[in-house]
Amino acid sequence: MPQYKLSYFNLMGRAEPMRLMFAYAGVAYEDHRIEGQQWAELKPKTPNGQLPVLQIDGKEELSQSMAISHYLSKKFGLDGKDDWESAKVREAIETMSDVKQKLRVTEQDPEKKAAIVKALEHDTVEPYLARLAATLKKNGSGFLVGSKPTEIDFHLFHAFNYWQQSKQYTEALNKHSEIQTFLKKFENLPGIKSWLEKRPKTSM
Amino acid sequence: MPQYKLSYFNLMGRAEPMRLMFAYAGVAYEDHRIEGQQWAELKPKTPNGQLPVLQIDGKEELSQSMAISHYLSKKFGLDGKDDWESAKVREAIETMSDVKQKLRVTEQDPEKKAAIVKALEHDTVEPYLARLAATLKKNGSGFLVGSKPTEIDFHLFHAFNYWQQSKQYTEALNKHSEIQTFLKKFENLPGIKSWLEKRPKTSM
Ligand SMILES: N[C@@H](CCC(=O)N[C@@H](CS)C(=O)NCC(=O)O)C(=O)O
Ligand SMILES: N[C@@H](CCC(=O)N[C@@H](CS)C(=O)NCC(=O)O)C(=O)O
Repeated sequence: MPQYKLSYFNLMGRAEPMRLMFAYAGVAYEDHRIEGQQWAELKPKTPNGQLPVLQIDGKEELSQSMAISHYLSKKFGLDGKDDWESAKVREAIETMSDVKQKLRVTEQDPEKKAAIVKALEHDTVEPYLARLAATLKKNGSGFLVGSKPTEIDFHLFHAFNYWQQSKQYTEALNKHSEIQTFLKKFENLPGIKSWLEKRPKTSM
Repeated sequence: MPQYKLSYFNLMGRAEPMRLMFAYAGVAYEDHRIEGQQWAELKPKTPNGQLPVLQIDGKEELSQSMAISHYLSKKFGLDGKDDWESAKVREAIETMSDVKQKLRVTEQDPEKKAAIVKALEHDTVEPYLARLAATLKKNGSGFLVGSKPTEIDFHLFHAFNYWQQSKQYTEALNKHSEIQTFLKKFENLPGIKSWLEKRPKTSM
């Protein structure tokens, strides 16, 4: 096994789905968490001026969270059983990324913000979760694509787990038994529960 | 070879990089262009309510432009020579997508819009092109990753070609001889020039 070092801030954010992958695959890695002051020094040395970055064997560096996610997915057998499943995983990842982009709210005023969030829950989150629940039901394995966990499941689990923790969209999540079943099934995969218990507690 | 049908509007937009892939690979496909009136009828039948959609052998359907792009890249040998090159291609695609997102201007007032575009050219396009030019120079093959054209080159070529056609950011493009060389080299790949000549002329 190569030596992996995953550098990110002391947050879940864009690195957490990959930390879940390491936990599930049972692969050792350095969970490198950078503090504010260190970042100014490190930033110009990263490929892209941003985190996360995955370093392999102390040499090669890969930036862009979704490039890291896909690279590790291939290494850990989380990319579906063939090119078609892999394509369906990617389709679901791109759809999730479209949804996440819509959910980014820049409004500062608390009252206006609450109204926007409410509209987003109704217009964006609910239809999205309804479609996911239908796909989970149709697929039947408890995971989104094929018979085993794939890359997209790690991103979905983290997003839903974060929504629960931060008390966002919980009503929408609770509406779908397929999503509740998915969350339970994922949590009981090898390595996941113990990671959730021992991971550093952060608010994002 | 499977039968491919690529459905999109009568635009270059999100489908054109894949049309360039088909042209380069010399693979026959149906270039299905949907007119405004047909869309209302087709929309609810698509996987995602959006285009592009790739249909294979009249059955399986894949939505999400970047899922289609990656699927065809694998089929056509455009995904780099190994997992590491493939990861570097994906890293570059994600960086390009970050840049494109920054370049989306919603401002309507023409004067304000011009000022925003000017700032974006300076703050976003120029540093991005400078980094691409440096990568092209270091890589030395004329393409962005490895020794042969990969998925990212089709997206870069289309973006730059569209900027030239729509007279956007042309000064920034002209600053870098590496980018000019890339454009010429790409245009001279098999199948590309003849596609550029015969493709339907559309403004986007
Ligand atoms: N598209 C990139 C975005 C990366 C990004 O926005 N990183 C943020 C943290 S989530 C960052 O490094 N911010 C600090 C900075 O830009 O100086 C990815 O997915 O990796
Ligand atoms: N993330 C999707 C976005 C697709 C998208 O925005 N498609 C637009 C055209 S570029 C569309 O279908 N618009 C018509 C509609 O939504 O009814 C992708 O990359 O395929």
